[in-house]
Amino acid sequence: MTAPRSTATFDPGTVTVTREGAIATVALDRPDKLNALTRSMWRELGAAVDALGAAADLRCIVVRGAGERAFSPGNDIGEFERERSNSGQAREYGAVMHAALRSLDACPLPIVAEIHGICVGGGLEIAALCDLRICGEGSRFGAPIRNLGLVMAHAEMAPLLRLAGYAATLEILLEGRIFDAAEALRKGLVTRVVADADVAAEALATAQRIAGGAPWVARWHKKFARRLRDATPLTDDEIDEAFDCFDTADFREGCAAFLARRVPRFDGR
Amino acid sequence: MTAPRSTATFDPGTVTVTREGAIATVALDRPDKLNALTRSMWRELGAAVDALGAAADLRCIVVRGAGERAFSPGNDIGEFERERSNSGQAREYGAVMHAALRSLDACPLPIVAEIHGICVGGGLEIAALCDLRICGEGSRFGAPIRNLGLVMAHAEMAPLLRLAGYAATLEILLEGRIFDAAEALRKGLVTRVVADADVAAEALATAQRIAGGAPWVARWHKKFARRLRDATPLTDDEIDEAFDCFDTADFREGCAAFLARRVPRFDGR
Amino acid sequence: MTAPRSTATFDPGTVTVTREGAIATVALDRPDKLNALTRSMWRELGAAVDALGAAADLRCIVVRGAGERAFSPGNDIGEFERERSNSGQAREYGAVMHAALRSLDACPLPIVAEIHGICVGGGLEIAALCDLRICGEGSRFGAPIRNLGLVMAHAEMAPLLRLAGYAATLEILLEGRIFDAAEALRKGLVTRVVADADVAAEALATAQRIAGGAPWVARWHKKFARRLRDATPLTDDEIDEAFDCFDTADFREGCAAFLARRVPRFDGR
Repeated sequence: MTAPRSTATFDPGTVTVTREGAIATVALDRPDKLNALTRSMWRELGAAVDALGAAADLRCIVVRGAGERAFSPGNDIGEFERERSNSGQAREYGAVMHAALRSLDACPLPIVAEIHGICVGGGLEIAALCDLRICGEGSRFGAPIRNLGLVMAHAEMAPLLRLAGYAATLEILLEGRIFDAAEALRKGLVTRVVADADVAAEALATAQRIAGGAPWVARWHKKFARRLRDATPLTDDEIDEAFDCFDTADFREGCAAFLARRVPRFDGR
Repeated sequence: MTAPRSTATFDPGTVTVTREGAIATVALDRPDKLNALTRSMWRELGAAVDALGAAADLRCIVVRGAGERAFSPGNDIGEFERERSNSGQAREYGAVMHAALRSLDACPLPIVAEIHGICVGGGLEIAALCDLRICGEGSRFGAPIRNLGLVMAHAEMAPLLRLAGYAATLEILLEGRIFDAAEALRKGLVTRVVADADVAAEALATAQRIAGGAPWVARWHKKFARRLRDATPLTDDEIDEAFDCFDTADFREGCAAFLARRVPRFDGR
Repeated sequence: MTAPRSTATFDPGTVTVTREGAIATVALDRPDKLNALTRSMWRELGAAVDALGAAADLRCIVVRGAGERAFSPGNDIGEFERERSNSGQAREYGAVMHAALRSLDACPLPIVAEIHGICVGGGLEIAALCDLRICGEGSRFGAPIRNLGLVMAHAEMAPLLRLAGYAATLEILLEGRIFDAAEALRKGLVTRVVADADVAAEALATAQRIAGGAPWVARWHKKFARRLRDATPLTDDEIDEAFDCFDTADFREGCAAFLARRVPRFDGR
């Protein structure tokens, strides 16, 4: 949450996508506002993730903020007077924001959050929907929306509950504290904490490790873990899908590489 | 669990309520027995929490034991021969105890447990149903009811499962160990551990932080987090409730305070 | 996962059961292969656990690998060409493996995993279905099956999700790293870490602590905790079962021992 320097020069910001090999990077790209999120950025984020999730040749997505000062401080409050000033507007804004959260959640590809600096509010919600979260020792976390008189909707709270559990999520929301990376790690909000200077390298190494595994296996693992969030019984077809991997070329390559004590090369077939 | 000094002078104990501003304190008040719980104290606890939860001008409840030696060591075993000596009596005792646990669980206000010293058995169950738990370095925890040949009922176990998870809850019950505050923190049973001399101050500071936020937001956050414990799909009305805050005076105050870089003053409107 | 030294001398391995008083020990017994698991060992493991779970005079089971180099590195890949080379064979192999996992999960007795050294893949899945996990500082953990092009089935993933949660389980599967005991403890995969030389003594002490409690209470606690994994409402009969303990001789012994300040002696009656 950042106060606008000038509403007259309001810049809705953008989301930038780059690709290198099997890894795509999505940047929340509004560095002069610490990547504070606007309604249009939520829409772009959702569209970018939807498009990348449909790319058969990708193996991992990295989500980050532009620059190294912030992942994102959350929604830009400077936009609220025009876009989110009452419940009617808030429903429209919420529809866009929640659609982006659903796109992140539904993405079949593994997603790594590369967290430099501030990761608060809507920024934390985006990070929570990534699969792994790498941050720096100087990163800061929180969701102090009670200071705005605002509520975190169910769809925004559920990913935090999944990571941090009931008690820590309520603690974060009721106290509204901003806390450091060590506390975020203890609360389960981040996967690992590295020196601030090493965040980009560790996020890349993580994405490369993920991309080095059999790509369908990564998608299956994410699909199965998500399915098990739902308590309804598995169908026979769902249970049976766990055996499909045994008919893949990647399985034959994996076993051959293991027995020959070499690194496997997976093609996603 | 404490042995009575004399059953002839059995004192059923009491529960004391005090208020200061928007914060109420509920004390398990039987310090000569370390606040060991009797059936009548469970009934008083439930009634006190029900009454406070209905008070529109309250913003936070603190639950503690009288004195600084114990939160509570659990149910007073000296009372068992008269009140809980077979399954029939135990059902009646359980009805009172479980009603109090339900009152804690259903309370719409945030509850802070201020834990001095021993927090065991029924004491731990009360603490587990508070929203934040502040304890001292010298606090001790556990649920060694297997040593009595007694079982923790489902309704008592569920809050521990929510905090500590399946494995740690079973570990606590199967081994019956008493453990220290550091282990309680690692197991997720407490929110934070401070020096013993600082427990009251930190509990008060936590309650004041909570009371400083928009009060309806706190209630909504607790309501939403509780709702998400239930896997049934949200109704449209439930989802829509997250937008009600945008029509409150507290939201307008929160945004105005943020943009003016001042501390907001929330009225709960 | 270990490469066979020679498929010509393939040894299907065995599972060994020993008893001492109320504690039984089940050993994955193939030390020359670090206790790599074969289809026949999965079948023997399931049968052993089923038989021990039906023994009324037992109070605790310890599961370990033979020797002190490994709990188990997982399924023996040397067997895959003959037993698990396509989806049809994998279904048959999976039926045996998953039946053993169900036997572990359904066992009414508390189970302690005594983990020396390597605990990976299928070994980790077995350990995850034990109730407490004691390991040494030098133990190593992971599930790098993505390197084989293989998927962890839902039934195998669910116990890891219960211990480590959604994020850590996906991290383990997507990155495929082997990690140390300290990280396993942080992830919730083990109950406690001791010096490597102390693993057997601590596992035995844990089993003895468990065996020292009222035996029906241990079974009830495990039954109730498992039941609460299921979100369906409890029936009245299920709720009422928590009061049966008040009619046992062990309850009377427990109260008498507490009031006399002596150690109780439980008979399971």
